[in-house]
Amino acid sequence: MKTSRIIIALFALTLLFQTAYSQKQNVDLLILGGTVVTMDGSRRVIDNGALAIEGGKIVAVGESADIAKRFKSTQTISANGKAVIPGLINTHTHVPMSLFRGIADDLDLNEWLTKYIFPAEAKNVNENLVRVGTRLGLAEMIAGGTTTFCDMYYFEDVIAQETEKAGVRGVLGETLIDFPAPDNKTFDDAMVYAEAFAKKWKGNPLIVPAIAPHAPYTVSEEHLKMTRALANRLGVPLVIHLAEAQSEVDFVRENKDMTPVEYVRKIGLLDGKTIAAHVIWVNSAEINVLKDKGVGIAHNPQSNMKLAAGVAPIPEMLKMGLRVGLGTDGAASNNDLDLWEEMDTAAKLHKIYAKDPKVVSAEEAFAMATIGGARALHIEEITGSLEVGKMADVVIVSLDSLHQTPLYNIYSNLVYATKASDVDTVIINGRLVMRGRRLLTLNEDAIKKDAIALRNKIIDSLNN
Amino acid sequence: MKTSRIIIALFALTLLFQTAYSQKQNVDLLILGGTVVTMDGSRRVIDNGALAIEGGKIVAVGESADIAKRFKSTQTISANGKAVIPGLINTHTHVPMSLFRGIADDLDLNEWLTKYIFPAEAKNVNENLVRVGTRLGLAEMIAGGTTTFCDMYYFEDVIAQETEKAGVRGVLGETLIDFPAPDNKTFDDAMVYAEAFAKKWKGNPLIVPAIAPHAPYTVSEEHLKMTRALANRLGVPLVIHLAEAQSEVDFVRENKDMTPVEYVRKIGLLDGKTIAAHVIWVNSAEINVLKDKGVGIAHNPQSNMKLAAGVAPIPEMLKMGLRVGLGTDGAASNNDLDLWEEMDTAAKLHKIYAKDPKVVSAEEAFAMATIGGARALHIEEITGSLEVGKMADVVIVSLDSLHQTPLYNIYSNLVYATKASDVDTVIINGRLVMRGRRLLTLNEDAIKKDAIALRNKIIDSLNN
Repeated sequence: MKTSRIIIALFALTLLFQTAYSQKQNVDLLILGGTVVTMDGSRRVIDNGALAIEGGKIVAVGESADIAKRFKSTQTISANGKAVIPGLINTHTHVPMSLFRGIADDLDLNEWLTKYIFPAEAKNVNENLVRVGTRLGLAEMIAGGTTTFCDMYYFEDVIAQETEKAGVRGVLGETLIDFPAPDNKTFDDAMVYAEAFAKKWKGNPLIVPAIAPHAPYTVSEEHLKMTRALANRLGVPLVIHLAEAQSEVDFVRENKDMTPVEYVRKIGLLDGKTIAAHVIWVNSAEINVLKDKGVGIAHNPQSNMKLAAGVAPIPEMLKMGLRVGLGTDGAASNNDLDLWEEMDTAAKLHKIYAKDPKVVSAEEAFAMATIGGARALHIEEITGSLEVGKMADVVIVSLDSLHQTPLYNIYSNLVYATKASDVDTVIINGRLVMRGRRLLTLNEDAIKKDAIALRNKIIDSLNN
Repeated sequence: MKTSRIIIALFALTLLFQTAYSQKQNVDLLILGGTVVTMDGSRRVIDNGALAIEGGKIVAVGESADIAKRFKSTQTISANGKAVIPGLINTHTHVPMSLFRGIADDLDLNEWLTKYIFPAEAKNVNENLVRVGTRLGLAEMIAGGTTTFCDMYYFEDVIAQETEKAGVRGVLGETLIDFPAPDNKTFDDAMVYAEAFAKKWKGNPLIVPAIAPHAPYTVSEEHLKMTRALANRLGVPLVIHLAEAQSEVDFVRENKDMTPVEYVRKIGLLDGKTIAAHVIWVNSAEINVLKDKGVGIAHNPQSNMKLAAGVAPIPEMLKMGLRVGLGTDGAASNNDLDLWEEMDTAAKLHKIYAKDPKVVSAEEAFAMATIGGARALHIEEITGSLEVGKMADVVIVSLDSLHQTPLYNIYSNLVYATKASDVDTVIINGRLVMRGRRLLTLNEDAIKKDAIALRNKIIDSLNN
């Protein structure tokens, strides 16, 4: 009979569909329908693209139609009309210093440090301040789409605890310096702390511990060598401020008759994974040395401008293929942790400085804030681009604000028009940490309340 | 009897209160409880301050307790925990060019103009594009706390219509140039248009018409003289691009054997109210000339950096007491209309350029965006500061975002930490145009829709 044949056919079709459906791979999270800016080797940009995320990792990147056919998930985010980008990477900061944001500005570096920053730190930096300041900085960074940061400060173990709890990726190092610090009164004490810290955090899915000697002018040659030995023995990177100020160049010249880069190269400090912040006062030969040694460069355009430190030769470094990322530096010298402004500023600063509007294009600036930053931190195998096998550090950015309208070119829009406030959703290591601008791992109100209470204490401490 | 006495006493008291209350002056709008940053001559900052606004004007500025005693209103805005600042002033833009935002970047000025901007304009600029682009730019400016802007473009009458309708203050001039423009095919036609435009709008409470010759290298000497004569005859200011690029200096040198400033001074172009944009390529003697002639300077740091035009000697101009304001330039060369970023960039750019972190302090940068901008546009009698007798151009800014926390110094916070997205409420000429980030005089969704439709046409026009 006709009817029974139709029933049988329908039954067969249903079975077929069910089979097809069950063949879809189940994943933790699907992001569908956005403009996916991969920052992979071929700089693929996928209109109406999608990501599949499973076990914290990106397991597929492609066209939405294709990904939707191959994967299913109980958690799907629509990114229609939005950009899906790699999480931004802040290659240099001192995160608890967000509590010193705006405490003093428009001063000579020396006056700023000795009259304000150092006294404020000496009188106030303790575990509690570091905890509150870290939370404040983490919240600001997440809200602005930063998923990884590189830090050196004191009580770094507290910073690591808070960073892990907030679900943020960090390359973190306890500062090693030849002066009494708020937590460790001697260099030797700090080395003990740093070693225990590195051993504790090594292998953590979010935290890469580092050894962080402060700078060539604040740590002796012998001590610098000890830091490199420790870093290599533990198999962790070394973070240092390098060639930041003319005064540093003068100091090293006077004491070692060399430039800062010549000096650290000669003493073997660059023989291992290194992340160097600022790197302003270098010539072409030194850039070659940094290239050969694979040194990661943390370029901090806004801090360097505000403190009048100098302009790093970034166009030349990019041309030479160095590992160059962007950083904000601490919020006391910026005064925020906003990588969108750093991208915009980097592109513009190098144009005016080189007298050439073609240097540091929008795409190059965006690369510095993503895959370049990952390379600078030596973690390009796990983050910095949207590629299968990398950890899912993903940011979804609205593209429909007035200041982003209209859109002609995605890199131009992201670098020259997009603001931190356009960041909508943030995923780190596969975990949602912000959705629709609401922080999911931190309590914004409590953070602000704690910060204001500490600010009052800090003001009192400076007046007494 | 005791009870009746109490009743009589209460009655008397009620009468007394009613009398006291009725003695309060009734005003249109009260803003109570904010940190009022007046930018008056003594740079008074009033914690828990207040403003009374009546008939579009500020009628009182002071402590909240005092203002609340003296005034009453059916409309009161609480600014608790917020800053109350003068509306920001964008001293140079081409507002409809917001539709060309990001159409081409990272190119030589000449290539950028001749391959992209000029063809895009020639093929697309008409009344409708100017109307849509103006609305888009006005919406972005209001949302970022800009209450006054200075503009030169084509179909300027359409810009004036839209500006008045949106309730924004504008110093507006039809561009006069020795090339066929989208609206006027000859310089003479444009002069007729400009005169009719100026006569139509003169005396308008929001619009100050101006005469706007494009630049010394695009308008002949005879024509430049005609523009000054017209401006003076009509009693309106003259707006011009001046000493922006090295190529302009070379051109004027070749043709007139003078620098641009020497040239325009000699032909009398500066003899009357002048607003000059960029003013980069000038020496100390020329700065003196600009000072003597009372020329307003529109400094556009981000545009100048992005196009690698050069760095204007702003610290010297400020020291000499010139009328210096900040501008964004058109969104095609910035790529936004955000004065918060211009303030931040101005402070940082001049520090690095002068190799001195003390130049262009946060307070000086904030002054350039407010009272300095009003002086640059020659309208400091009516706007630029919160003072009794000035028109009520007032912006209320949230101070509680993560990136603004904590607050130590109000100028530092406003310049180095505050973003356009922190602007909460905007009042122009006493009228609320944005409240709680909601635009009240413009339809944001319709603007975006229209802008996207035009973008598609513009792309098609460039491909054909």
